[in-house]
Amino acid sequence: MRTNLPVNTQRLWDDVMALAEITDPAAPYTRRAFTARFLEGRAFLAKRFAAAGLAVRIDPAGNLIGRRPGRAPGKGVIMIGSHSDTVPGGGRFDGVAGVVAALEVARALDEQGLALDHDLEVVDCLAEEANVYGVSCVGSRGLTGRLTPEMLAYTEPGGETVAQALSRMGGDPVRIAEARRDDIAAFLELHIEQGRVLESAAIDVGVVRSIVGILRIELLVEGRADHAGTTPMPLRSDALVGAAEAILAVRKQAEALAGEDAGYFAATIGVIEVAPNAANVVPATARLVIDARAERRETMQRFASWTEGELPRIVAQARSRLTQISILSDSSLAAADPRLCAIITEAASSLGLSSREMASGAGHDAAMLSRIAPMAMIFTPCREGRSHCAEEWAEPEQISAGAAVMFESVLRIDRAPTEA
Amino acid sequence: MRTNLPVNTQRLWDDVMALAEITDPAAPYTRRAFTARFLEGRAFLAKRFAAAGLAVRIDPAGNLIGRRPGRAPGKGVIMIGSHSDTVPGGGRFDGVAGVVAALEVARALDEQGLALDHDLEVVDCLAEEANVYGVSCVGSRGLTGRLTPEMLAYTEPGGETVAQALSRMGGDPVRIAEARRDDIAAFLELHIEQGRVLESAAIDVGVVRSIVGILRIELLVEGRADHAGTTPMPLRSDALVGAAEAILAVRKQAEALAGEDAGYFAATIGVIEVAPNAANVVPATARLVIDARAERRETMQRFASWTEGELPRIVAQARSRLTQISILSDSSLAAADPRLCAIITEAASSLGLSSREMASGAGHDAAMLSRIAPMAMIFTPCREGRSHCAEEWAEPEQISAGAAVMFESVLRIDRAPTEA
Repeated sequence: MRTNLPVNTQRLWDDVMALAEITDPAAPYTRRAFTARFLEGRAFLAKRFAAAGLAVRIDPAGNLIGRRPGRAPGKGVIMIGSHSDTVPGGGRFDGVAGVVAALEVARALDEQGLALDHDLEVVDCLAEEANVYGVSCVGSRGLTGRLTPEMLAYTEPGGETVAQALSRMGGDPVRIAEARRDDIAAFLELHIEQGRVLESAAIDVGVVRSIVGILRIELLVEGRADHAGTTPMPLRSDALVGAAEAILAVRKQAEALAGEDAGYFAATIGVIEVAPNAANVVPATARLVIDARAERRETMQRFASWTEGELPRIVAQARSRLTQISILSDSSLAAADPRLCAIITEAASSLGLSSREMASGAGHDAAMLSRIAPMAMIFTPCREGRSHCAEEWAEPEQISAGAAVMFESVLRIDRAPTEA
Repeated sequence: MRTNLPVNTQRLWDDVMALAEITDPAAPYTRRAFTARFLEGRAFLAKRFAAAGLAVRIDPAGNLIGRRPGRAPGKGVIMIGSHSDTVPGGGRFDGVAGVVAALEVARALDEQGLALDHDLEVVDCLAEEANVYGVSCVGSRGLTGRLTPEMLAYTEPGGETVAQALSRMGGDPVRIAEARRDDIAAFLELHIEQGRVLESAAIDVGVVRSIVGILRIELLVEGRADHAGTTPMPLRSDALVGAAEAILAVRKQAEALAGEDAGYFAATIGVIEVAPNAANVVPATARLVIDARAERRETMQRFASWTEGELPRIVAQARSRLTQISILSDSSLAAADPRLCAIITEAASSLGLSSREMASGAGHDAAMLSRIAPMAMIFTPCREGRSHCAEEWAEPEQISAGAAVMFESVLRIDRAPTEA
């Protein structure tokens, strides 16, 4: 890994660590969207944005934006950033690394006297994580015109609406339509990988070619509740045995699809609920939730077809019945812009850093932004793939390598010939 | 099925139905041990016992006993009966059928002018079902000297001890040792099968040759909590996949052991708890509880050895680890007296009723009594094997057939030559 990078590793690291200090002390690292603690973090960031010479504003969707005007306003905006909110008991890097890396890019450009043709905007998108209001990616939805009146009316358990919370954050729900952007020439987001692909292959940065679509499927397996003592084995219809067959079949099918050269695929059964769940009763029902993630729509469709076509037969062979297959949610996949991916790969190479293209198995603000602008993401390694927990960790050099790749990428995007 | 049985089908049925009326109206059929409703049921039974000419008493262990003295007191007591408490939302027959059938046997003997050499005691054993005090088979434990000072000190959530509750039922915890019996020549219990063996083979009565031992084993499968999106399939250690392999392996092993000519065997995994049990996280741990029931100690030992020897390897092949195998409980099996079983079989045959020997997969007061006396049980069919629920059902003729077999068996036991 190179040490003479075009960004200031220490300065970047200090800002990440300073934000980490702004946490619910009882549950580090917690800075939930829409809380007073979150506003404290925002105040810190706004000060740092301003100190970097950026023109700071909050847009109607509650995004904190620091703007560095370009020499050729008509060329549009290169927007870079991520989010500064956390899950409860989350980590110091998820989101924050991307916001601070973007800020560091702006600072490094200034320090090196580099003017851009494009306007550069550093963004801290509001409320990316799932939250008590029931809508995630609030800010990035706003940027794409996808924060609907229905969503603005969602309430948290205390009764506050998203619209009210947005106002508290400095946004303006009445003028939400004005948050929609049509001037973004490129959107780049740096994020820790939240997986172990880069770490295990000792690769400096991941070039995200797509953000997976996520299909959640609920399965209901039915058997018959019988006395566990008095019902001979051949007379049983055990829902848990049927569920076990389904779990193993889904695993096998996921491994098969992941092993094909058909893009990233993963499927997980993370939820199981059995009734009556008593030691002396043969299970009557088992509810399972499949979380399937695919980089290609076609792969996901094959998995969904397999689930509908094959799973009922597999469960039936175990003498129980798959009586319901319900789609709980189905989020579209988001493709990165191939030109931007190529630029990022070249930028890494020019810095002597290793890279590989990969899919993002998790959702990000960048997935939203892909609806209105060419998008790409830069992944940086994190220790053991841990994320959404206090143990989440990345080395200063790992983040600054990603920031350096973003710096180089921004320069190359700015200089690239405009597409027809 | 014969219709001219030596017992009164209607009278027997009327008493079963009358007891069923004594229920928590909100949750038929509920008459929990130690409650006011239970005492109401007991008052009804005591009146019926007395009306049948029995000398009624409550022993120190809280058992309701109706005694019919024999002509040859030295020969000991033939004790017949079951229990009148229910599970919450239970049925009308579990326990009750056996108490009322025993009462009907005493009535029929009187009506037919049949004196016995043995004393005959009709018993309603206290608190057979699992209850909030944490000790089941309270009365039958007392009859065998197995109601320990520790058990008498158990408390229900409200703080009342078993000893206090026993006193409320008319028992006497201070004189509990006097409840222990050494004068029982034979104990017979009639009970609904709570399974579908008799019904599916259209057999009138089951002759229980043994009551299974029950081994409860807790398994802990450990994997690693990873992001369900960002962790490629080959990098996962999924505790639920390991658990699914264990569930199927236990099922297969149970079927193999049940299929051998080595007595009744069944094993069930009725409990599964997965953590964190979230759709987007690869399961980190899965807790399973195996309920294994065997008629022969040797079969149970083979199952336990297989669990310790083979399951860890099977789970490990699924890339997770079986880190704990704990025995939660281990109740001994109880063998019926072969001579009593032969008598019951002959009694059924003499009445023109079909019978088969079988194991009881559930526990009963008779299992306790086997520690101090020759014991046997008579099973009667019940619809679809349903039990511990409001749908529990048996036809009047099915119960009275069992009662008639008990009547005939009591006569034969009374006349049989005493063993050396």
